[in-house]
Amino acid sequence: MPFRFEIEATDGKARAGRMVTPHGVIETPVFMPVGTLGTVKAVAQDVLEELGVEILLNNTYHLYLRPGVEMVRALGGVQRFMAWDKPILTDSGGFQVFSLSELRRVTEDGVAFRSHLDGSSHMFTPESSIAAQIGLGADIIMAFDECTEHPASRERARDSMEMTLRWLQRSRDYFDAHKEEVVWFGEESPIAGCSSEKRIANIEQRPPVTPGQTQALFGIVQGGMYPDLRRESAQRTIEVDLPGYAIGGLSVGEPRPMTYEMVDAAIPYLPENKPRYLMGVGTPEEIVHYVAQGVDMMDCVLPTRAARHGLLFTSEGRLTIKNARFAQDEGPIDPECNCKVCGRYSRAYLRHLYASNELLAQTLNTVHNLAYYLDTMRRVRQSIILGEFATFLSGVKPPHLSVP
Amino acid sequence: MPFRFEIEATDGKARAGRMVTPHGVIETPVFMPVGTLGTVKAVAQDVLEELGVEILLNNTYHLYLRPGVEMVRALGGVQRFMAWDKPILTDSGGFQVFSLSELRRVTEDGVAFRSHLDGSSHMFTPESSIAAQIGLGADIIMAFDECTEHPASRERARDSMEMTLRWLQRSRDYFDAHKEEVVWFGEESPIAGCSSEKRIANIEQRPPVTPGQTQALFGIVQGGMYPDLRRESAQRTIEVDLPGYAIGGLSVGEPRPMTYEMVDAAIPYLPENKPRYLMGVGTPEEIVHYVAQGVDMMDCVLPTRAARHGLLFTSEGRLTIKNARFAQDEGPIDPECNCKVCGRYSRAYLRHLYASNELLAQTLNTVHNLAYYLDTMRRVRQSIILGEFATFLSGVKPPHLSVP
Repeated sequence: MPFRFEIEATDGKARAGRMVTPHGVIETPVFMPVGTLGTVKAVAQDVLEELGVEILLNNTYHLYLRPGVEMVRALGGVQRFMAWDKPILTDSGGFQVFSLSELRRVTEDGVAFRSHLDGSSHMFTPESSIAAQIGLGADIIMAFDECTEHPASRERARDSMEMTLRWLQRSRDYFDAHKEEVVWFGEESPIAGCSSEKRIANIEQRPPVTPGQTQALFGIVQGGMYPDLRRESAQRTIEVDLPGYAIGGLSVGEPRPMTYEMVDAAIPYLPENKPRYLMGVGTPEEIVHYVAQGVDMMDCVLPTRAARHGLLFTSEGRLTIKNARFAQDEGPIDPECNCKVCGRYSRAYLRHLYASNELLAQTLNTVHNLAYYLDTMRRVRQSIILGEFATFLSGVKPPHLSVP
Repeated sequence: MPFRFEIEATDGKARAGRMVTPHGVIETPVFMPVGTLGTVKAVAQDVLEELGVEILLNNTYHLYLRPGVEMVRALGGVQRFMAWDKPILTDSGGFQVFSLSELRRVTEDGVAFRSHLDGSSHMFTPESSIAAQIGLGADIIMAFDECTEHPASRERARDSMEMTLRWLQRSRDYFDAHKEEVVWFGEESPIAGCSSEKRIANIEQRPPVTPGQTQALFGIVQGGMYPDLRRESAQRTIEVDLPGYAIGGLSVGEPRPMTYEMVDAAIPYLPENKPRYLMGVGTPEEIVHYVAQGVDMMDCVLPTRAARHGLLFTSEGRLTIKNARFAQDEGPIDPECNCKVCGRYSRAYLRHLYASNELLAQTLNTVHNLAYYLDTMRRVRQSIILGEFATFLSGVKPPHLSVP
């Protein structure tokens, strides 16, 4: 059963669909929580299941450095490693190399960089990025691209886009030659060194991957902040036939209306029958608007990172939990929210936890913010299916006014 | 329905019983997790419920400083504050004043101290400690005592013991005059400022406290490391008629055989029909031995604090999860453990989380260690009921050899 994407309903440019991957089905539009190092920070996997998370993202750069690709592969790939048997997507590592590492040097071959952890020297090329992602074994993997910085001159943006296109072909070539090396391609690997019959039984209860399946490689549109380059990048990216396409290099410091313009410039040239993934966005209001532009998948650290800093998203707007006005507030974070944090804990208690620097603050805040994002996407999807998305959209505050 | 304690079975000096408190029943012997600031660090309340926690401990010193007693009282007391509707015990604040605060000055009146948070000046007296504990509203509260330091001369230990006895009477007098001020004595307080019908409904579903109930005040035996003073302290402490008695001032740096000797010196003089609480102990092996000495209740930060430092307790002994030999170990922490961490995650993954300083490490490690302690106590209790405790005890490694 190869990767599959089906559109169930459309409303304007917005689409409601289903994506079938080796580790399960994902309803779209979908927001993917970020689980950088093989963990969505502060939240256990059973809680992610309760929240209804259908796919999460791991960062190749981080797992490449710790615990290392060979280690994850030896442990059965990211799903078995983190005991999460639903779909996972890995990025190419490129973005973190650009944003985190030191002494980065970009050549036609790839990117030489030093680890942000210990300064050790490494090199990512299209081939080594895809090799790492095959080793990690996520369901969806990303071509190696250059995230063009902002601002960038037209010439620089074009040169960068051209290199990303050459790297796309190299990513594709390497993937085609090696895709059957993914750890779950054949039979399930034996459970090495496990002394517990109970844990083996639990692992074996998980639905196995149908033998012979491979990962899905997505290409990435670049082009800086130039609409014509975005269009050209989209047109030339889809010449490489792939099961899905992403729009990268946005939300890198540009004003929000410019982001919308770049998405609009690329979307019409992406195939209608394949998923469209807008990388690294956005606020709760923005993700609704990106769906209106025709986007199917998004990821962002915002709900989880903001939670750890005490910034909570609610149906009534943002809320900074450390604010003194919540000290005696017996209400929940969000009266409209059905999450288990809002059902149990008061703002007063959550403020106390945050002010006291208690670990539980980070867990509970993150659970709520993820619930808010996932619930937003569920309501978006439902409104598309019911043909009521325009009404839903009109109730969302213009997002360029509400960037935090 | 006043506080009640019933013994169901004995085996040697060990006892299996049931303690009835305003917020529920506790099966003894019981290990009480420490929830310092109104949270068992890194673990959500629903997970504590899943673990079968029947009572937990809050620290008066910490809650007095943050968020303050009046705040907790205004929010309905510790149970409603932390959304935990099972029994809670608060200590008197004395131990933290001795161990954490700065510029402490002890007089007959009480203890003047400076906050470890901001250096502000405060005073705890027997009266103000009991007032704080009535304000917090735990089911079981503790008399204000002086924890005698170790080593201490015989004269110093006697003087300290005498003051604790005078403070016990003052604690009792204040409690008798003010016990009806506990927030749940009359009707449930209104839910102030709660904008959510859902949360109000959830709160109202919790079993209410039968009107007219008060807290249970326990006295504390001191006497340093002198068996005759321990005996005298026990004999004179029980002259103040109270529903339960604790043994304090142990596990303060003395060798373990001395701890056992002091427990043995006090226990025969404590009433058989009342619970005996040994404060601030111990390792998994030690708590089994204290039960053998006739102890019914214990608390300790060891399982939770050790977990946060990567030290895990298992049926095969201690395990330091950061150890490189676990890097590729697919087994669970403890093959014999039924907790949800052992059922799902590998040592390799837990090592990765710990080595990467991920928050989830602290949560999962703590859940396992608490499960191990609680499971140990359940097995102890069962073996007492079956008359097999001697056999169970003989399988436990001599605890004075295994202090971490």
